[in-house]
Amino acid sequence: MHFTKMEGLGNDFVVVTDEIEITPTVVRLLCDRHFGIGADGVLRVGLANGFVVMNYWNADGGEAEMCGNGLRCVARFAYEREMVQTRSFKVITAVGERRVEALAEPRVELGPVAMGESFVWEGATFYAATVGNPHAVTIVDDPEKVDVARIGHALEAATPGGVNVEFVAIEPASIRLRVWERGVGETLACGSGMVAASAVTHHLGLVADRVSVEVPGGRATVEIEPDTSWLSGPARTVFAGEIELPKEL
Amino acid sequence: MHFTKMEGLGNDFVVVTDEIEITPTVVRLLCDRHFGIGADGVLRVGLANGFVVMNYWNADGGEAEMCGNGLRCVARFAYEREMVQTRSFKVITAVGERRVEALAEPRVELGPVAMGESFVWEGATFYAATVGNPHAVTIVDDPEKVDVARIGHALEAATPGGVNVEFVAIEPASIRLRVWERGVGETLACGSGMVAASAVTHHLGLVADRVSVEVPGGRATVEIEPDTSWLSGPARTVFAGEIELPKEL
Repeated sequence: MHFTKMEGLGNDFVVVTDEIEITPTVVRLLCDRHFGIGADGVLRVGLANGFVVMNYWNADGGEAEMCGNGLRCVARFAYEREMVQTRSFKVITAVGERRVEALAEPRVELGPVAMGESFVWEGATFYAATVGNPHAVTIVDDPEKVDVARIGHALEAATPGGVNVEFVAIEPASIRLRVWERGVGETLACGSGMVAASAVTHHLGLVADRVSVEVPGGRATVEIEPDTSWLSGPARTVFAGEIELPKEL
Repeated sequence: MHFTKMEGLGNDFVVVTDEIEITPTVVRLLCDRHFGIGADGVLRVGLANGFVVMNYWNADGGEAEMCGNGLRCVARFAYEREMVQTRSFKVITAVGERRVEALAEPRVELGPVAMGESFVWEGATFYAATVGNPHAVTIVDDPEKVDVARIGHALEAATPGGVNVEFVAIEPASIRLRVWERGVGETLACGSGMVAASAVTHHLGLVADRVSVEVPGGRATVEIEPDTSWLSGPARTVFAGEIELPKEL
C-alpha cells in the first residue's frame, strides 16, 4: 500500500487515497509509532462526483468529524496530486463542505465559532467556545509556566462530554498558546483550539479579526469572520512510502 | 534519500546505506516522530573490504556503541539486500566484530557479560552486570506493579555514569521484565537489558543457559555462553520510503 506522510504544525498524518479500505485495526497499525508508520491520525482523500472527499480517523481507530490541520494537509495533497485543477476548491467532510485554498501555506475554512458562557476554575476565568467541538479558553501570563497536564486533565474530567483547554498569552502582535486536547493530552498544535483561542480573545477585544497564533508546533494565522473562521499555516509532505499490510486485516 | 524503517521487539530504526553522510542534525530530523520519520535511532549499513559495517546513532544525535535489537535488524537488512551471500556472517561494530545469523528470527552475538556486586536499594537487592553498558537487575513478583519510572530514574540518578535498570519476574519457563534505559526512560525492549537479566538470573541458578525473555515489545531468546551471549527474536521491515532532506543539512 502506497502512502504519504504529511504534517501541519507538528500534527502528523498518514494520507492514503480511497483505494484502501480503512478499518479501526488498520488505523491503529498505521498510526503506531513503533510497529507501524506513526501518526496522530489517518486521512483518506478521494473524489466523488468531482468533489474532494476527506475522511479522518484518530490514532485510536475512531473516525473523527474534523481536523483543521488535517484539512490543510488534504488541501495540499489534492492539489499536488492534480485531483483538482484550481487552488481554491471545496472539500466534503463529515461536518459538511469546507472551502480550502492550496496556497504555499494552505488556508482552510473551519466554520462558525459559537461563544458560550464564562466560568471560574481554580481562580481563573475560562471562556467556553464551540468550533464543532467544545473548548475552554483562559488567558495566562506565560503558557510555559502553566501545568497544562494537571489543569487540562482535571477540567476535562470535570466537564460532561469532556473539553479541549487552551492557555493563551496575549503578545503585542499575536497570541501564544498551549493546548490540552480532549482524550489525547497536550499536543503540538490543534486547529480548532487555535480558532477557539483567537475567537475568544477577539470577542474580548484583545486582538483584531486576523490573529497570528503561535503553538509549540509552529505559527499559523486565524481569521475570524462573522459566520465562519479560517486557519492558514504550514503543511507539507515529510516522506512517501510503501507498507505491506498483514493479509488478515 | 531512500530509507528502510525496521523494528525489532518494538525498538525502531531508520536504516540507511553508507551513501549518506550522517550528522547529528540529520539523525535528530530522521528520528523526530512528528516532523521526521520517527525512530529510536538511525542504523547505517555499509560494506568495507567485504565486511558488513554498522554504525548506530541514538535519536538525540549521539553515536552509540551498540544496540542489540539494531544489530538484529542489520543482520536481516544485509542478508536481504544481498550484501552477504551466507546467512551467518560478521558485522563490524563500534565494539568490535559480532557474529550474526540472518534467520527468520535473527540471532546476534552481544559479547560477554561481566557480573558485578549486588547492592540493596529501597529494600530490594539489585545485581550489577555489564554487557558493554552497565545494568542493575532486580527480581520482582510482577513487573507490571512496579513504578519503573520512579525507581529507574532515582537509581540512574544515584549511580555515577548512570545505569540501565531491569525489573524481572521469574516465570515457570521464562523471565518477564520491564527496562528503564539510561538517558531514555522506559522502553518497549532493550537488547543488552534482556541479556543482563538473563545472565543474572542464570548466575543465581534460577534459569537455564537458554532463556525465553518477554518484554513489553515482544518475546526473544537469550543464550548465555561462558565467554559470550546471543540474542534472537523478531526483526522486520515495516515500510520503505523516500525523504527529501533540507539542502542546508
